Amino acid sequence: MNKCFFAKFARNVFLLYTFFVKKIYLDNASSTKVDEKVFKKMAEYCIEDYGNPSSIHSFGLSAKKALEKAREDVALFINAHPREIIFTSGGTEANNLAVLGVFKAMKLLGKKPEDLHFVTTEIEHSSVSACLEEIGKEGGRVDYINVGKDGIIDLDEFKKSLSQNTALVSIGYANSEIGVIQPIKEIMKSVRHFRKENNSKLPYVHLDASQATPYLNTNVEELGIDLMTIDGQKIYGPKGVGALYVRDDVSISPITFGGGQEKGLKPGTENVPAILGLAEAVKIVSDTKVKESERLEQLRNYFFQHVREFVPKAVINGHLTERLPNNINISIPGKDGEFMVLQLDERGFVCSTRSACESSADSSFVIKALLGGPDHKDENRAISSIRFTLGKETRLSDIKNLLRTLSEIV
Amino acid sequence: MNKCFFAKFARNVFLLYTFFVKKIYLDNASSTKVDEKVFKKMAEYCIEDYGNPSSIHSFGLSAKKALEKAREDVALFINAHPREIIFTSGGTEANNLAVLGVFKAMKLLGKKPEDLHFVTTEIEHSSVSACLEEIGKEGGRVDYINVGKDGIIDLDEFKKSLSQNTALVSIGYANSEIGVIQPIKEIMKSVRHFRKENNSKLPYVHLDASQATPYLNTNVEELGIDLMTIDGQKIYGPKGVGALYVRDDVSISPITFGGGQEKGLKPGTENVPAILGLAEAVKIVSDTKVKESERLEQLRNYFFQHVREFVPKAVINGHLTERLPNNINISIPGKDGEFMVLQLDERGFVCSTRSACESSADSSFVIKALLGGPDHKDENRAISSIRFTLGKETRLSDIKNLLRTLSEIV
Repeated sequence: MNKCFFAKFARNVFLLYTFFVKKIYLDNASSTKVDEKVFKKMAEYCIEDYGNPSSIHSFGLSAKKALEKAREDVALFINAHPREIIFTSGGTEANNLAVLGVFKAMKLLGKKPEDLHFVTTEIEHSSVSACLEEIGKEGGRVDYINVGKDGIIDLDEFKKSLSQNTALVSIGYANSEIGVIQPIKEIMKSVRHFRKENNSKLPYVHLDASQATPYLNTNVEELGIDLMTIDGQKIYGPKGVGALYVRDDVSISPITFGGGQEKGLKPGTENVPAILGLAEAVKIVSDTKVKESERLEQLRNYFFQHVREFVPKAVINGHLTERLPNNINISIPGKDGEFMVLQLDERGFVCSTRSACESSADSSFVIKALLGGPDHKDENRAISSIRFTLGKETRLSDIKNLLRTLSEIV
Repeated sequence: MNKCFFAKFARNVFLLYTFFVKKIYLDNASSTKVDEKVFKKMAEYCIEDYGNPSSIHSFGLSAKKALEKAREDVALFINAHPREIIFTSGGTEANNLAVLGVFKAMKLLGKKPEDLHFVTTEIEHSSVSACLEEIGKEGGRVDYINVGKDGIIDLDEFKKSLSQNTALVSIGYANSEIGVIQPIKEIMKSVRHFRKENNSKLPYVHLDASQATPYLNTNVEELGIDLMTIDGQKIYGPKGVGALYVRDDVSISPITFGGGQEKGLKPGTENVPAILGLAEAVKIVSDTKVKESERLEQLRNYFFQHVREFVPKAVINGHLTERLPNNINISIPGKDGEFMVLQLDERGFVCSTRSACESSADSSFVIKALLGGPDHKDENRAISSIRFTLGKETRLSDIKNLLRTLSEIV
């Protein structure tokens, strides 16, 4: 009886401890904490300057001015022209607008769905892949390029996939689950070569930079891409806001309709407070990108160097270095990823198995792709994966504690 | 020289005075100030509880719990089931989802666009009418019911418009420009009668309650409608958030695609802070609706009773009593509405000519409709209209000052 009582008592003390102890948040690829500077900006435009930017009175003009300044800030950040920035309700809507908007524009230009071809990878986020599935249902043709064991796309396969019907290539700059960075330079080289040979402006290239924005080069001129998605909630900005870069000469049509805001591509009153917040967030990213990337890379590499000492069976998923500085993804065969997430959570570490948008699936389709495609029968690695995505509050001590805790659990 | 100097001096003193004096905001139909309680809720979920509700860890669960509580609050407010509430990025998106979502669902059920019929009024907000225009381009048939001089739809014409192909009736509960309330009871009586005679669940009825929410009955059971739009920014809630009520048995399909959030109808990470803000806003509306409606009705009626004393030529647009308690809309023939808005703004009164979403047009299509349709040649009244939409900060003294100022300008 006494033994049982003490065991229960100790357990309760532990639970109370973990309840009050500060949690270590390692799920920044799902959602980030809104930066305080960002929030202050939002406050100003919720409580004081709350006009509708389409109104002609002073409140409206003030909101309009702020909105256009925010557009300039975001444009400056990616080296675009302000008129090339379309504010959306988030990354998902920006991806929908890019993919479905180009599809629609091409149809309006007289092309039949069956004469339209799209190229993507087999590891895209659902906000791209689900749109392409829709296009498939309407008769469009979609090629899903394979990735290698390291998560990087097969460039030869990519080159061969391009055809005179290819309207759009949509690629995730860095994968949300394993953080692997795709070789955009090489991809663009092939695309430019193809365009030149065919004397065509097509295919357009859309880059989903939702995860990449805080760490990688997002200079659209240097990248040479045509459309690019930015997501507020992944860069310490607000939820419910994003931006789509649309190069000036891209043919794109609206997918929703109304008052003509955002060049008609995202109708409805502009979400001024959130847009101002997004602009503030990109300014902070711009100031801190290089240093923060270096700092997080060191933490990530420390984890990778030491993980086998603590968890001998651990396997790292995705390329070791061609990946986001804040992304750690491992599998521990024999363990259930979701159960480990819950165990880690109890011990104060907040992490995930995969993209929150894919959380209803049984296992990771991204990890399966690394192993040779969705029909791969050894689900072990795909079921046992865990993702840690570091952020600006992550310290080396957190990584050391994480390794110790992982070892205890396993 | 001296005279000129003093004139300039007086002018500058006046401008300085108006700059520092508190503006009287009378454009609450365009956008409302975020309530402080609402903003506090948003703050909590931006800075502290910032998890992604699709994540399985404690941060995710906490966000998910809050999200579902908000859904319950909104459902309770309109007497619906929580699963019938779809959170969107605002009123425009909710209207798009209702109209285009039903159109798409019907096509998926095997109907051809040319066999699909939609009924609306000639004075709808562009977020409904632009969707119906799109449907028209795809081959669907749309009837725009005429309104009388008072802005109320012709019920006979409405009844006659219903056919076995009618999929959806989309009606603005109260017009955003002239505040006129449509006879929903009579409309629903006709629809129910039609459904019974044809033994059909169709047509569905969609109500855009964006403007009506703070003042009118939004009990969906009592109204008997199938879909209803609520907009955060019109009810002292945040911009960038809205809700679409979708009755359980309504066939509706997504118009954007992704991670399956909101029953697949609004994919993308739920904008938790804004949704919590919206829920807080409806709770406040629920507590204050009756009293506030009475109070504003008195102010509105005071204006209507006295306006001719100050501006003899003034004409009231729309029905005198079947209108929102906070809506005043007049024309002053011979004056330019936009110029008056600017003059009033200089004198501290913030108002508008029409819906901010229609601000690019030369004159009001709603006022033209009252005069006998868009081909009406006497544009005078449609060019000279001004809208004052009162709010919770409006006092009788503001209305008295407004009348005096109007008289000075005219």
